[in-house]
Amino acid sequence: MGTTEITALVAELKERLGAKVTTSESARAIHGRDESVFPPQPPDVVVMAAAVDDVQEVVRLCNRYEVPLIPFGAGTSLEGHIHAVSGGVSLDMSAMDRVLRVSPEDLDCTIEPGVTRLALEKTLSRDGLFFPTDPGADATIGGMAATRASGTNAVRYGTIRDLVLSMKVVLSDGSLISTGGRARKSSAGYDLTRLFIGSEGTLGVIVELTLRLFGIPETIAAAVCSFPTVEDAVATVTAAIQLGIPMARIELLDTSAIKAVNAHAGLGNKETPTLFLEFHGSPAGVKDQAQRLAEIAADNNGAGLEWATNLSDRNHLWRARHQAYFAALALRPGSRALSTDVCVPISALAGCIHDATADLERSSLPSMIFGHVGDGNFHTIILVDPDDTVEMDEVRGLNQRLVERALDAGGTCTGEHGIGTGKIAYLEAELGPAVDVMRRIKAVLDPKNIMNPGKIFRL
Amino acid sequence: MGTTEITALVAELKERLGAKVTTSESARAIHGRDESVFPPQPPDVVVMAAAVDDVQEVVRLCNRYEVPLIPFGAGTSLEGHIHAVSGGVSLDMSAMDRVLRVSPEDLDCTIEPGVTRLALEKTLSRDGLFFPTDPGADATIGGMAATRASGTNAVRYGTIRDLVLSMKVVLSDGSLISTGGRARKSSAGYDLTRLFIGSEGTLGVIVELTLRLFGIPETIAAAVCSFPTVEDAVATVTAAIQLGIPMARIELLDTSAIKAVNAHAGLGNKETPTLFLEFHGSPAGVKDQAQRLAEIAADNNGAGLEWATNLSDRNHLWRARHQAYFAALALRPGSRALSTDVCVPISALAGCIHDATADLERSSLPSMIFGHVGDGNFHTIILVDPDDTVEMDEVRGLNQRLVERALDAGGTCTGEHGIGTGKIAYLEAELGPAVDVMRRIKAVLDPKNIMNPGKIFRL
Repeated sequence: MGTTEITALVAELKERLGAKVTTSESARAIHGRDESVFPPQPPDVVVMAAAVDDVQEVVRLCNRYEVPLIPFGAGTSLEGHIHAVSGGVSLDMSAMDRVLRVSPEDLDCTIEPGVTRLALEKTLSRDGLFFPTDPGADATIGGMAATRASGTNAVRYGTIRDLVLSMKVVLSDGSLISTGGRARKSSAGYDLTRLFIGSEGTLGVIVELTLRLFGIPETIAAAVCSFPTVEDAVATVTAAIQLGIPMARIELLDTSAIKAVNAHAGLGNKETPTLFLEFHGSPAGVKDQAQRLAEIAADNNGAGLEWATNLSDRNHLWRARHQAYFAALALRPGSRALSTDVCVPISALAGCIHDATADLERSSLPSMIFGHVGDGNFHTIILVDPDDTVEMDEVRGLNQRLVERALDAGGTCTGEHGIGTGKIAYLEAELGPAVDVMRRIKAVLDPKNIMNPGKIFRL
Repeated sequence: MGTTEITALVAELKERLGAKVTTSESARAIHGRDESVFPPQPPDVVVMAAAVDDVQEVVRLCNRYEVPLIPFGAGTSLEGHIHAVSGGVSLDMSAMDRVLRVSPEDLDCTIEPGVTRLALEKTLSRDGLFFPTDPGADATIGGMAATRASGTNAVRYGTIRDLVLSMKVVLSDGSLISTGGRARKSSAGYDLTRLFIGSEGTLGVIVELTLRLFGIPETIAAAVCSFPTVEDAVATVTAAIQLGIPMARIELLDTSAIKAVNAHAGLGNKETPTLFLEFHGSPAGVKDQAQRLAEIAADNNGAGLEWATNLSDRNHLWRARHQAYFAALALRPGSRALSTDVCVPISALAGCIHDATADLERSSLPSMIFGHVGDGNFHTIILVDPDDTVEMDEVRGLNQRLVERALDAGGTCTGEHGIGTGKIAYLEAELGPAVDVMRRIKAVLDPKNIMNPGKIFRL
């Protein structure tokens, strides 16, 4: 691809799609960076898709001119997923934001990929329904599917992998496929739905999703409990999961995170590892779950267990958890946050957090740890100046050692953020020859390597 | 492939693998048919694999001689999955039946693929654990993964798709890959675990599985409730799911099934549509679920609701459900059972069952209907003489119309049995151009088309 192809492509895009196409500096800048620490890499041109036809048109042209195409949702990814590493077209899906159908009886809906998490929440709440997957950011559902996102309630409801019934996808030749229908389960051929979930735009453009929904629980109870050690908190979680207590959310903030939140938001939480819990169900069911959890927490040195069921009290209790990310950013104003997301078997979780803490304490960079502890998934947030090469070397070293320890424990380098450009080497370390299988699938579905090239693996 | 290649392959197999290789008539016959109505198609040779090395050896030889290879578990598949449609090697995995590791703390285990469902249940029960996926037959776990099996409790625990954390697979060139580790969730690259689940041996041989486990519930309660109509029974299920009552099992037997069971097992169940339910949890949690369900059933004309919590009482209550398949076979001794398994959105379920009933009543063939109604998945069992071409034409017509109605409703032709040879045309009808994507993946991962050829799609 050279400037000649780009110039010709842009001219043809403008001819066919008119005002949906822009090469303005500001649009390119917005579409050239996500929430990662990596330097921006703007695309050559931005196209705002309004319908499936637009997507097919753009993909066909990119195919003809052999120019890269990068689907863009809300720009909230964390590993450089939407960076235009080889230039090309950023295909902004955010205007394809219609909720096409909601079926309360079937607990499912069909949406366009640009619907954001909070917009969907608002629409569904009118029917007393919700879609569980909740990464911190107000990402688009298409982007969440592309990165196999999850969040705080995966422990109860699964990740987005489990909650997409089927999709429509535009392939690299511009053709449109449907990966399935509305059945809750199917054994009909290869699981293409799951193949596209987590493919990070490298195999096709997701243009429609059919999602599994849930009724908003009759009762929601929140709880907070502090522990002398991370080991005690994790032991509580392990025991609760083994006993089958259906916790909807179970989040850990370690001492560094509680300190950061107290400082940032003027809270007075006890500065020890703390669990934030949520239970969903009937009034009697939630009460039973809460009692059982309280017994387990007490057995594991939990203290100061507090409960709340009405919304404002719940929000008050969970305030420290809600503030965690902002508290992290406030540790060093003006810096960027590197958020790691290893996931390990729960028996290895306390050890991995312990080792991460020790490693972070040797560093001069501000940091904190919190996580979706029911899944064995935790984040370290490290505040860094991306322009300082010494700091970036240090943060790469911290990340590398963290991932190595997670892989040694049988875990994964990424529980929910994806590979993007940032974890390509770690994917190789984790899966080795299996990455070649991914490359072969990529090669056969995108022979010209135009779909978000340079992500997940090197060809 | 001709007889020369087979002869040379068999000679080399015997040289390398000795007594694990047999061409005896009886072994070939056993490995040439599953539980479907399709005529047997025996392989040319059977190899009993004892270890991963054996599998790699056999695959490499099949690759060199370009001879088909068909992984074989327990032979309980229902759509001709293990039939040797082009001859070749049946690779029997049933001797690879070791449970390699059970980790109660992490609620996971690693096993060889030949472990059967009941053998696994027995081993896990020593640690108070269980693996939920329960197709009727005592299938191997490898076979269950290969067909994306589920069963009665998928409504609560998901299908095997949701419960395999990772696998080791031998590819068509004999190389071995691991699709992941032990993390509960991962966003690390393409979801190869899900790609191999449901691939029916056409992409590789599963040689190891890491499974997610659950603690055996403290309390298990069973219930039975009869309804005047299928609509009332389904309305009860819909309401219970919308309210988030976490039913572990919810099975429907229609009037034809209840009649068959009463006749076969001398039971006195009321001959109307009947729901069989099971609840898992703490004593208080189960009691709460049961009370809520009872209210919903009463609102929908349910009658004669009976409950039981101890094992023998539960088994007594569920006796009709447990006997359903045998009762179906007894409708016509000596015949074969064709078991369909469409799955539809639950709002379409009552209508689909109604239409299926009407269609079956016009047929002279004995039949019954039961299903995993919480998933929208139901079976019609039709008793047929496979050697009678008129009957086979009739049963094909019934199946075809059933599938067409399911697809019209947004459903799938197969909820849990898979495509095999029996549903190739239906897969095309269901997914159209997406089947080409499957073909391309097949072509790149198995360029010589040696891995269970002739299944899922025609190349």
